[in-house]
Amino acid sequence: MMSDLAEMRKVLVLYTGGTIGMQKNHNGVYAPVPEVFASKVKTCQELHDYELARIYSIRDHELITKALHCNKVITYQIQEYQPLLASSNMTAKEWITIAETIEKNYHDFDGFVILQGTDTMAYTSSVLSFMFKNLNKPIILTGSQIPIFETPSDAKNNFLYSLVFASCSDIPEVCVFFANRLLRGNRVKKVHNSQIIAFETPNYHILAETGLHVKMYRNFMLPKMERGMLSVFTNLCTRVGILHIFPTLSRTQLLSFLEPTLEGVVLITYGVGNIPSDRQDLIDVLRNAVGRGVTVVNVTQCLRGSVAVLYETGHRMEEIGIIPCYDITVEAAYTKLMVICGMEKKSEERAELMKQVMRGEMTIQPY
Amino acid sequence: MMSDLAEMRKVLVLYTGGTIGMQKNHNGVYAPVPEVFASKVKTCQELHDYELARIYSIRDHELITKALHCNKVITYQIQEYQPLLASSNMTAKEWITIAETIEKNYHDFDGFVILQGTDTMAYTSSVLSFMFKNLNKPIILTGSQIPIFETPSDAKNNFLYSLVFASCSDIPEVCVFFANRLLRGNRVKKVHNSQIIAFETPNYHILAETGLHVKMYRNFMLPKMERGMLSVFTNLCTRVGILHIFPTLSRTQLLSFLEPTLEGVVLITYGVGNIPSDRQDLIDVLRNAVGRGVTVVNVTQCLRGSVAVLYETGHRMEEIGIIPCYDITVEAAYTKLMVICGMEKKSEERAELMKQVMRGEMTIQPY
Amino acid sequence: MMSDLAEMRKVLVLYTGGTIGMQKNHNGVYAPVPEVFASKVKTCQELHDYELARIYSIRDHELITKALHCNKVITYQIQEYQPLLASSNMTAKEWITIAETIEKNYHDFDGFVILQGTDTMAYTSSVLSFMFKNLNKPIILTGSQIPIFETPSDAKNNFLYSLVFASCSDIPEVCVFFANRLLRGNRVKKVHNSQIIAFETPNYHILAETGLHVKMYRNFMLPKMERGMLSVFTNLCTRVGILHIFPTLSRTQLLSFLEPTLEGVVLITYGVGNIPSDRQDLIDVLRNAVGRGVTVVNVTQCLRGSVAVLYETGHRMEEIGIIPCYDITVEAAYTKLMVICGMEKKSEERAELMKQVMRGEMTIQPY
Amino acid sequence: MMSDLAEMRKVLVLYTGGTIGMQKNHNGVYAPVPEVFASKVKTCQELHDYELARIYSIRDHELITKALHCNKVITYQIQEYQPLLASSNMTAKEWITIAETIEKNYHDFDGFVILQGTDTMAYTSSVLSFMFKNLNKPIILTGSQIPIFETPSDAKNNFLYSLVFASCSDIPEVCVFFANRLLRGNRVKKVHNSQIIAFETPNYHILAETGLHVKMYRNFMLPKMERGMLSVFTNLCTRVGILHIFPTLSRTQLLSFLEPTLEGVVLITYGVGNIPSDRQDLIDVLRNAVGRGVTVVNVTQCLRGSVAVLYETGHRMEEIGIIPCYDITVEAAYTKLMVICGMEKKSEERAELMKQVMRGEMTIQPY
Repeated sequence: MMSDLAEMRKVLVLYTGGTIGMQKNHNGVYAPVPEVFASKVKTCQELHDYELARIYSIRDHELITKALHCNKVITYQIQEYQPLLASSNMTAKEWITIAETIEKNYHDFDGFVILQGTDTMAYTSSVLSFMFKNLNKPIILTGSQIPIFETPSDAKNNFLYSLVFASCSDIPEVCVFFANRLLRGNRVKKVHNSQIIAFETPNYHILAETGLHVKMYRNFMLPKMERGMLSVFTNLCTRVGILHIFPTLSRTQLLSFLEPTLEGVVLITYGVGNIPSDRQDLIDVLRNAVGRGVTVVNVTQCLRGSVAVLYETGHRMEEIGIIPCYDITVEAAYTKLMVICGMEKKSEERAELMKQVMRGEMTIQPY
Repeated sequence: MMSDLAEMRKVLVLYTGGTIGMQKNHNGVYAPVPEVFASKVKTCQELHDYELARIYSIRDHELITKALHCNKVITYQIQEYQPLLASSNMTAKEWITIAETIEKNYHDFDGFVILQGTDTMAYTSSVLSFMFKNLNKPIILTGSQIPIFETPSDAKNNFLYSLVFASCSDIPEVCVFFANRLLRGNRVKKVHNSQIIAFETPNYHILAETGLHVKMYRNFMLPKMERGMLSVFTNLCTRVGILHIFPTLSRTQLLSFLEPTLEGVVLITYGVGNIPSDRQDLIDVLRNAVGRGVTVVNVTQCLRGSVAVLYETGHRMEEIGIIPCYDITVEAAYTKLMVICGMEKKSEERAELMKQVMRGEMTIQPY
Repeated sequence: MMSDLAEMRKVLVLYTGGTIGMQKNHNGVYAPVPEVFASKVKTCQELHDYELARIYSIRDHELITKALHCNKVITYQIQEYQPLLASSNMTAKEWITIAETIEKNYHDFDGFVILQGTDTMAYTSSVLSFMFKNLNKPIILTGSQIPIFETPSDAKNNFLYSLVFASCSDIPEVCVFFANRLLRGNRVKKVHNSQIIAFETPNYHILAETGLHVKMYRNFMLPKMERGMLSVFTNLCTRVGILHIFPTLSRTQLLSFLEPTLEGVVLITYGVGNIPSDRQDLIDVLRNAVGRGVTVVNVTQCLRGSVAVLYETGHRMEEIGIIPCYDITVEAAYTKLMVICGMEKKSEERAELMKQVMRGEMTIQPY
Repeated sequence: MMSDLAEMRKVLVLYTGGTIGMQKNHNGVYAPVPEVFASKVKTCQELHDYELARIYSIRDHELITKALHCNKVITYQIQEYQPLLASSNMTAKEWITIAETIEKNYHDFDGFVILQGTDTMAYTSSVLSFMFKNLNKPIILTGSQIPIFETPSDAKNNFLYSLVFASCSDIPEVCVFFANRLLRGNRVKKVHNSQIIAFETPNYHILAETGLHVKMYRNFMLPKMERGMLSVFTNLCTRVGILHIFPTLSRTQLLSFLEPTLEGVVLITYGVGNIPSDRQDLIDVLRNAVGRGVTVVNVTQCLRGSVAVLYETGHRMEEIGIIPCYDITVEAAYTKLMVICGMEKKSEERAELMKQVMRGEMTIQPY
């Protein structure tokens, strides 16, 4: 039937944990179960095709599939993370491991899929985008709202399409694929915690959409790098934080939050980037923090829109060295800070880097 | 032409400040200008009709208008707040003043309009909803993205429709009117910081929509109270806070944020209400806080969806007394805490009240 | 493992054809293939569970599954339509066959699933809603954008959730399930011809939504009938048509379209229900048609909104007996006409019935 | 105060009729009133600024305004159409008049605003886009859901922003401005008949959006023509029609609709462009029509999506010469036919032109 063998593409899948591989435990709550995911996947005809496995003589630890909208055959290996993580436990250590695994395997695969929980997916996809320089292959994060062990589930389609984009597209970006849409990794937010359409890029166009056809929005993708070796930055600074501004925030709270050893902080402010303008006490604490080298960036509490210097308070914040970060997400601002503060740089240079677009994570608005 | 006089309704307008009344100052940034708003409004034919003023012989400090979709004549007075506030400066003191003004004038007017900036509008509309008991008249908050002094602007239509809903509807709720939509006050969020459609109720249906007709969604409105005197609770507790959870949150930060005198805190958590489950240090701090009487509530970082006990970490949080607050907004949870912690109650009673629906602010999901 | 057997529900599945069961033929275009669907379904673990089949000792022609969010076991039979139809070929004859099959099997099953192509699904779901009186069990139509034989596909989840709603809900309505949403059958429109989210009820709320949980919007469902036997009306009138109004429509075209034997026609008009008011020739043709007993109904070209008598032209149309059908869809108006014109009634009675809500298909607006 | 005069731009406004200038008549229905619109506009401070009129010494028949987001002064003249038209009466004659008026005044103005009713606005904006070749100035159509004489109304803002885009942008396109959004004229559809947000371009990105700032999406705009004189094609063919396909369409109806003298027809078909494949009688009628030179084009009943040759029936339609018109709207297909059939061309050439993108009206999908 298949006289000519289709071209074969190789994908490395990192299974880090998350709902996609969970099962209900004796308490009736979902929990990850180690060392069963790959074998379960092997029993799903959609995810592993025995006939193809025979024809292409793949090895035991490999899986193989062929997907609609992709005229190639995809072989992949699943590397399981130990221990498996609920995504709420993801932090710098795990991100570094992931990045290093990809770096080590970069030349042996055409693309990468990361399976993880949805809770911190926006953080992971953001930080990875900043950690990789000269990335020229797709890195696709996905997961699901319902475990792959349940029926019905959104897991299989999310996984399959992620394999397709990782192998058959040439998007040189860290992306999230979820619910039929491919999204820029450092632009995503989890906007619904229980519906199937869980992710969105509130300030950016989608990159692709699957359906009867796959519709690619190439104008919105990063250009492919012509030259330059992949490099991975792993010296993430963990002395960074996020602070949501609220009316009764006290000087003491702000001070103690910033004090000890913090090197960078994301302030989630009102509207176009405002904090209470009549709170000289807060302004003073912030000015002092900037003065001693803390990188303070300003993002908005609103889902959509850009920080701008339009009102008295925005004016004042910029004067004391707080950096307006346009339409960046909280998650991208925070993880970009981890990268920038991890570089051995002076605070002025850090501020400059935060203001510049690094990986398509924000759009600079000229007001 | 008008042989029979139409019925007249009276509205009290509180002008507290905000973009709606701002002008560009010498630095080119918008700032409020005291004591010009009412006189400016008086020069707008749409907002004040001289012919009607004559026919109805209204007094000097009153304005009068007649709006489409409302077969009554609306007279109103504008009470200006001194000093005018950027909405980023709104806090308990201002909310109490507003509530007391409405209480004092409750029987002399058919409804109330509050003009304020959009930055903290969701906080104000939430807190007012909780402060009033047995409210039986409409309180409509509005503002604009563009000052009423500019052309074009969204201000006039927002103001006019707010007058219409305050006078001609019988909605016994605190609402926000913005960009042709009437929204429940304690369900709104500012979701865009520069587009005209700035507000949304992410987890609730709109209450009404204006257009060629006005479409009322009465099934979604609170029922009118048949009996019971209006009462206003003004003993707001200001020792409440909001903390956005992030991967590198340190024990020290959490501890010092909660420590000194905080009585209530809103944790903005991952997904369906998760914090890092492997961070025993954070769990311990939270358990201790609950133990000494702090009311700790759990809301999600996601724009939409409800906090639920589905995963190990959610389970654990409920065990130590953290209160899952379903699909409430951050703003409503925070201001509801101000009210509940202001009552002289034991911490168990506070927890119980936080779990109950008070003014339609959340939907309890039975999982 | 399963000590107690779960309650078992029975569903009858009518497979009429459509993309869901298609395969690519030698020309590379999708076409239906007879007598393979059920056997293919039997090989999908999600759609047929061998272990359950053994435990529940089901018969050979039966399939069995157990779905998330439904604590019951679902057995079902697939009855294949001969010949299989592309949905573009669906018309009165097929609808009558479907209705009669359901009637005949009504008492032997808990619910019904109809698999059909998406092209005319809105017509089928509309007409069935009008043909059944005193329906007290769910009838769920579904299909897919991508065949069930392809990988990935939306077919399995659409099918599975339809089985769930047909067996485990008690919605006494004809519904469409598609892309995680349950929709009222006589309110749906196909709004996208290639994206996964293909259907919408433009003027009505969704009935349910699937995700991590299933969210039911019970306020929007029809009430369950307490009494009354199911009856099926099958005398569909096929002398009904649809005419889209356009600026250069000629008197001759309108006349010949209405002339010969038409008994009912849906005019798809501008805006709130307008036709060119200066075209006395068209008005005359329509008046004559109404005069000789044709039932002429007025629906809008706009996706959303209701026909209303607001402008001169709307006024005039009502005067000559054209029936404003509020916010009904074209598909529902057309199929309702098939039912109403199939009744042996006088034209005044037909008009009266078209103006009344029959199965929740429209909302009467009091202007 | 204004020491330096701002640059002045000139706009010609064609007031053709429509809701924007209507008043309620003695029957309580809205109707146009001749010769009062301009004088009414002159009394609105936002639309005509007396102070500026004095400073710039404009002439009596001119109006002047200065709008936010536009650092120029706009003078404009209103040319009223006689008689005023309900937009449901707009057809070829009126479109030619409008086009000729713009042609005659092309060099004396910086841009053009056309005020008309919303019912046929999508037809007018489509046909104008095809009639003008080498257009290098903005032509903005607008109107309103509520008359400018009512309070509140969407009319003033729609009018003002249209003046701004007509004078201060350099968009070389026919556009519709409505409810804060600028849309490509030959891509719009009226999607709601009573809400303020009435228009949408279902298969295309918006061109600009107004709010606190004006956001321009320049990637989606047509490029400015560098050379080439404006020319206007006015030989519109009126022997074109639109036919909505439905299940019981009879051979006689189709035949008589196409017969007499029709030169072009838009078939509104199911899904990706299907008609009943088992209806050889319809196929034969269509084949004959194509054979005798009728240009038959295929667009979908779905709001979104593109016609494609994916199923047996689509295959067959293309074989007999029916032209798949991708994602064009019904209104654009119909008016493009008026232009193409108005050219003295052979039917093969017409077909070729219908398949090509002429003014950005469709996106060719390579399947």
